[in-house]
Amino acid sequence: MLYPPSLIDLIEALRRLPGVGPKSAQRMAFHLLEKDREAAGGLAQALQRAVQSVGRCQRCRMFADAQLCPICSSSSRDPSTLCIVESPADVAAIEQSGSYRGCYFVLMGHLSPLDGIGPQQLGFEQLESLFAEGVVQEAILATNTTVEGEATAHVIAEIAVRHRIKPSRIAHGVPVGGELEYVDGGTLAHALAGRQSLG
Amino acid sequence: MLYPPSLIDLIEALRRLPGVGPKSAQRMAFHLLEKDREAAGGLAQALQRAVQSVGRCQRCRMFADAQLCPICSSSSRDPSTLCIVESPADVAAIEQSGSYRGCYFVLMGHLSPLDGIGPQQLGFEQLESLFAEGVVQEAILATNTTVEGEATAHVIAEIAVRHRIKPSRIAHGVPVGGELEYVDGGTLAHALAGRQSLG
Repeated sequence: MLYPPSLIDLIEALRRLPGVGPKSAQRMAFHLLEKDREAAGGLAQALQRAVQSVGRCQRCRMFADAQLCPICSSSSRDPSTLCIVESPADVAAIEQSGSYRGCYFVLMGHLSPLDGIGPQQLGFEQLESLFAEGVVQEAILATNTTVEGEATAHVIAEIAVRHRIKPSRIAHGVPVGGELEYVDGGTLAHALAGRQSLG
Repeated sequence: MLYPPSLIDLIEALRRLPGVGPKSAQRMAFHLLEKDREAAGGLAQALQRAVQSVGRCQRCRMFADAQLCPICSSSSRDPSTLCIVESPADVAAIEQSGSYRGCYFVLMGHLSPLDGIGPQQLGFEQLESLFAEGVVQEAILATNTTVEGEATAHVIAEIAVRHRIKPSRIAHGVPVGGELEYVDGGTLAHALAGRQSLG
């Protein structure tokens, strides 16, 4: 055995990060031990603190360190509009656009029966009780334009209709600033089917 | 602020890993908190243990958790041959080839004055005292074939000669199993210049 056991353990632990293979894990471990032991200590602490303190918002399932996330506990947001997304990164992207003042619901994934991800894992029960409160009037479905994302949106739309809430889907089409000739066929088909009257 | 502070800290800490940008760091943090909190705890522990226990071999500067690494403390290795490499990964690569029974010296880098890496950072003093012991008879220079690697090899070769030790450079040429037509010009030039007589 060439490397000390604790170094081998570190390489193994780094390999469990998404997108990190054996070579990258080794490079990361060497970098931390050779050049940046301070960063290694900092990362260890940050991991422990995050695991201890980061939970989910009880209302929207967003990452939060309190019962409610900053958006759900804010009085300046409109609770009658609910935007349903797949991941916390989607919330961050929409917030950065600065064009939305409603609330969110984070599924933390999409329906994928083969991976064992069903309505329970995505918090559909929690979503239904939110719908049942009678505050939400429109549910904006902002799941990804993948087969699974579309299926998830479809199922949630049915639940919304059952609660007399208006479901809507974000528009799919040509990106702003995008040139038509470089846009893929699927997006163009969406853009044509979703055309809006100017008259 | 959308994410809890401890989540932001975790993303920042992950960004200090080599090859990890803001998007990957976010993906890693979300993965650990959503799907694999056990891995997060394991990584935190592995980091702390590695920082505490992994040091350098006093003889060859290889990562080790004792005063000497397994190779330097082994009685079955030939201490009269010293292979000088840039990184611990190079030691692992040569060991895997199973074709070397001598000892190593790990520089942990190459001469790079602009980055503040000089003879002191690469342990030249330690290398000279090893040479002065009178045990080493051949120093095999296995630094990389980059400008910095060649310069480092050149300087060490001069030190070796001063101690009446025979310096040698590993052969550079066409990889075994490689097809000539796909080999780059620099490698071919090396292969031609380093041709060996069959007669």
